[in-house]
Amino acid sequence: MSILEALKARRTIRLFKQIGVSSDDLRDMLDAARQTSCACNGQLLRYVVVKSSDDVKKVFEQTAWAGLVKPRRTPVWGVSAPAAFIAVVGPKDANSMTYADAGAAIQSMQIAAYEKGLGCCWLGAINREKLHGLLGLQEKQEVFFLLAVGVPAEQPVSEDITDPKDVNYYLDDKNQLHIPKLTVDAITRWL
Amino acid sequence: MSILEALKARRTIRLFKQIGVSSDDLRDMLDAARQTSCACNGQLLRYVVVKSSDDVKKVFEQTAWAGLVKPRRTPVWGVSAPAAFIAVVGPKDANSMTYADAGAAIQSMQIAAYEKGLGCCWLGAINREKLHGLLGLQEKQEVFFLLAVGVPAEQPVSEDITDPKDVNYYLDDKNQLHIPKLTVDAITRWL
Repeated sequence: MSILEALKARRTIRLFKQIGVSSDDLRDMLDAARQTSCACNGQLLRYVVVKSSDDVKKVFEQTAWAGLVKPRRTPVWGVSAPAAFIAVVGPKDANSMTYADAGAAIQSMQIAAYEKGLGCCWLGAINREKLHGLLGLQEKQEVFFLLAVGVPAEQPVSEDITDPKDVNYYLDDKNQLHIPKLTVDAITRWL
Repeated sequence: MSILEALKARRTIRLFKQIGVSSDDLRDMLDAARQTSCACNGQLLRYVVVKSSDDVKKVFEQTAWAGLVKPRRTPVWGVSAPAAFIAVVGPKDANSMTYADAGAAIQSMQIAAYEKGLGCCWLGAINREKLHGLLGLQEKQEVFFLLAVGVPAEQPVSEDITDPKDVNYYLDDKNQLHIPKLTVDAITRWL
């Protein structure tokens, strides 16, 4: 599979097989993250890998999942929950550039994971206050995002749309998740 | 080359051969961008591709390049300037999540370009007010970032560091750019 094919085929995963993820695989994801472009090469982001079952459960309890497809895409602990989390941490007073850096690093990790047969869900609906303590962060740090990681137990598909009103994802009668994505023509002007 | 190897080997490019970039290659980059994760699948980003020489020149004049390695990594029009720009555009009132979305989409485009032998520079030091007019944006839109695209005329290398004070990139006596990157161990804690 080419890199372009992977970039197009990779989808967010919200249901996971109850199989562990190796430290080597997580380390490779972080190796991809650290080599990602960032503003002025400043490298303001830090990572906390949560891998031991007890800690994963505690972090899992501080997450919320896709409201549009509740409860079927809300993973259940011991049944469909992720095997690990990578917390993306930045300075409390960060500007929008550092959030852009975080998005780029997360996309690197997601693509690295995809090549290994792993799936990810980038989570922004998280209890940052509780996580700050759970993850043992410094006062000046904040959790920007969590990346849930595990072996996929679902196969979402994308479908092309041209109207921005149609972006809501949905489950079909076979319980497959459909992700509407605007076509290149719908989002691009050429000069 | 594996995807992980590409994610680790890709570097920002600031000097370009004076060779055009095909519309097909730019379209593939946008195809990767549109399939990238984004908050709530909202797809708030839009793109303007600047490819005609006159327009590329006008946009190029509104950009600033790596201050630390001036003037040797400030491209010169007609000599080392990029062949095209992709402007990443979002809502004027965007929050930090939308900037994270932009970072992720840009990383997708950069990796897609890398596979094609193209190089990119993600630019944040740009004259957004002038670009708003040049790109014909709507009142409620703003240019978040520019992505310069072209055929690389330099081969930067990364080197491992462990001290966040050492992140400044530099040119060696052979005019090769060195990009210090913090090791995985320097940026990660494991729970």
